[in-house]
Amino acid sequence: MPDRQELSYNRISGQNLDRLAALSDGLFAIAMTLLVFDLHTPVVAAIHDEAGLWRALLRLGPHFATFLMSFLTLGIFWVGQQTGLGMVARCDRHLTWLNLGFLFAISLLPFSTRLIGDFPDYRLALGFYWLNILLGGVMIYASWRYARAARLLKPEITEATACAMERRVLVAQGLYAAGAALCFIDVGFSIAAIILVQMIYVIGPRTGFLARL
Amino acid sequence: MPDRQELSYNRISGQNLDRLAALSDGLFAIAMTLLVFDLHTPVVAAIHDEAGLWRALLRLGPHFATFLMSFLTLGIFWVGQQTGLGMVARCDRHLTWLNLGFLFAISLLPFSTRLIGDFPDYRLALGFYWLNILLGGVMIYASWRYARAARLLKPEITEATACAMERRVLVAQGLYAAGAALCFIDVGFSIAAIILVQMIYVIGPRTGFLARL
Amino acid sequence: MPDRQELSYNRISGQNLDRLAALSDGLFAIAMTLLVFDLHTPVVAAIHDEAGLWRALLRLGPHFATFLMSFLTLGIFWVGQQTGLGMVARCDRHLTWLNLGFLFAISLLPFSTRLIGDFPDYRLALGFYWLNILLGGVMIYASWRYARAARLLKPEITEATACAMERRVLVAQGLYAAGAALCFIDVGFSIAAIILVQMIYVIGPRTGFLARL
Amino acid sequence: MPDRQELSYNRISGQNLDRLAALSDGLFAIAMTLLVFDLHTPVVAAIHDEAGLWRALLRLGPHFATFLMSFLTLGIFWVGQQTGLGMVARCDRHLTWLNLGFLFAISLLPFSTRLIGDFPDYRLALGFYWLNILLGGVMIYASWRYARAARLLKPEITEATACAMERRVLVAQGLYAAGAALCFIDVGFSIAAIILVQMIYVIGPRTGFLARL
Repeated sequence: MPDRQELSYNRISGQNLDRLAALSDGLFAIAMTLLVFDLHTPVVAAIHDEAGLWRALLRLGPHFATFLMSFLTLGIFWVGQQTGLGMVARCDRHLTWLNLGFLFAISLLPFSTRLIGDFPDYRLALGFYWLNILLGGVMIYASWRYARAARLLKPEITEATACAMERRVLVAQGLYAAGAALCFIDVGFSIAAIILVQMIYVIGPRTGFLARL
Repeated sequence: MPDRQELSYNRISGQNLDRLAALSDGLFAIAMTLLVFDLHTPVVAAIHDEAGLWRALLRLGPHFATFLMSFLTLGIFWVGQQTGLGMVARCDRHLTWLNLGFLFAISLLPFSTRLIGDFPDYRLALGFYWLNILLGGVMIYASWRYARAARLLKPEITEATACAMERRVLVAQGLYAAGAALCFIDVGFSIAAIILVQMIYVIGPRTGFLARL
Repeated sequence: MPDRQELSYNRISGQNLDRLAALSDGLFAIAMTLLVFDLHTPVVAAIHDEAGLWRALLRLGPHFATFLMSFLTLGIFWVGQQTGLGMVARCDRHLTWLNLGFLFAISLLPFSTRLIGDFPDYRLALGFYWLNILLGGVMIYASWRYARAARLLKPEITEATACAMERRVLVAQGLYAAGAALCFIDVGFSIAAIILVQMIYVIGPRTGFLARL
Repeated sequence: MPDRQELSYNRISGQNLDRLAALSDGLFAIAMTLLVFDLHTPVVAAIHDEAGLWRALLRLGPHFATFLMSFLTLGIFWVGQQTGLGMVARCDRHLTWLNLGFLFAISLLPFSTRLIGDFPDYRLALGFYWLNILLGGVMIYASWRYARAARLLKPEITEATACAMERRVLVAQGLYAAGAALCFIDVGFSIAAIILVQMIYVIGPRTGFLARL
């Protein structure tokens, strides 16, 4: 009777929403802080005066842009996961593992950021970065769909709210894909477009066309 | 009267389950994120075009496989500890220290992963990695047995549940040992087998032979 | 009707105060611990006896001073954010993002600290460090002002308390600016002045002129 | 009226015990995990066969001993702080800052550990390490004494319990000092003695002379 077995461990494991949230918060906090590790301070021996330090800091500009982009990406994903988990009444092992898959994508982001920082002119680097964001989006979307299908959501969550959550992920991923596609014109242009879209999400305008995103 | 002394500190220390869970979540989150530090981006000076970057990323494949294996190991251990601690009604110093021993094994895993990533063809590296997993299993098994023996479990935990917890650890460690033993044929084969077993645990099939694992 | 859309996601996202606090605690904990990474142990090959190690440790003095200064900065900001969030009754997406902006400044501080440690005689390094502190102050001030304006504070928070919170940020930032301005005389003098002011905050004298700061 | 001012910010700040605990758990988790960063895997180019890797791992022995010692130190301090804070009914800014001072000592420990790992034969390295442990002990002792004096403890905490807490810190610090003093004979002997004492604390014997420690 394999069903009894599944009851034995798989039905009792991974049910603690608080610990899933705590693990996520810790992992996001570390990923956000590690990003800054790729902002290397200028080599001391190469700097001889204030103007030299100024120029060296200016040359960090592209690295700083990718740092900002990844911090915004992490913030947007964190708010999204926080919002989604906040609507979940109880957790099971499948939801836990879907979220661990999401955290896997998050833990990869510092690597992808470093790649894009080291190879700012390479479409492949931006493509890898985009795949990383896509993986995060797929996992967060899958975990939300699963929570709905398995009736793990709080009873007060309406159909309209659930649809809004899904639409948000799809629209955001569509914008990321469009931004990433701009790399066929110019990689820097692509990064600028992604940061611009993210800024709209961060500011969260209350009216107008942008509020519909 | 040594007994009064023990009451004084050892009976009052290490009783906070929430802080033990928080420490564990933090440590797991860091270990998961640090794994990616061994995914080094290709050296900039050695890459001259998109095709070169593509080949360099492909060469990261073995490192990526060990990264994935360790992330899955950490996820499985985390779910296991979360499930076990969730059945504990109260904590004492011995249970706390057994869990700290478990966290010791977890904190070593990034080192073991790095070792296997640097020496992918060495049986000794895989043996060290396996010993690390074994240490984690021994500590989690010991902490569960202690919690049962010291009557720290919640009253609603049945004998069947307790046995399922122990069987799970033993079966999992048996599979890890079998997977590790494959290194006498080929180390890469061994890693592939371990990832395969882990994937079965992650997906958690509901029926069939695999559900009994 | 853009307003319905905003209700859909932006009105429901980012409302979990506990997770915002947990993310902040994790990020502060990491930033505090990473500071010590810039305290490099002396190079083994360059040390031949106890006296040589002693001299090498003494040469770490300036790095140790910036480490101490940044730890105090992080502590002061953490206490400030903890105090502010403790007065908030409920959270919304705008307050969440203002706090994420604050955490962005915090995550930058290890970089700024490294910069000042590597270039202890450069006014530009101290200026960058000061801008980082200023950004943190601006974000914490903005998040407090927003929480007041959007009526997110607990009902028991009086006008006097709210004003004290704001005055504290303004006075502290004024002292930081004055300390940083001393770098036009001497950068080391500037660092010493900042540490001195921070120590007053840490000790928190109950009476006299200093208690008014 | 400076007293009104102090009421304004210093009386309202730093009162959240939960966030202090969360910051501490995060910082301990990171410090524990960072210790392993000083376990460097052998240089790939220098290893040519399994026997070579075996010898290289054996040479890591002293580093592994300091890693174990520091993990135990962190565990003992964490259990101590957890136990102490668990007896505190409410928190104020002074108790918060005393605990931040304690966390400062904890954040330094990876540096001290690295120092002793790099200079295993230097008394100065062991002396620095001991000073670090002493600082941690002084801060935890001061925070406990302050909590008692300021009547922040829970009403059920008896005089006997309070004395036991203090005696524990004093006895432990006495043993650390004695162990560190052994470095005047031999540094390795000193490390072995400290690990031995820590192991007694970890195991927590219930009877006999050792239970009185």
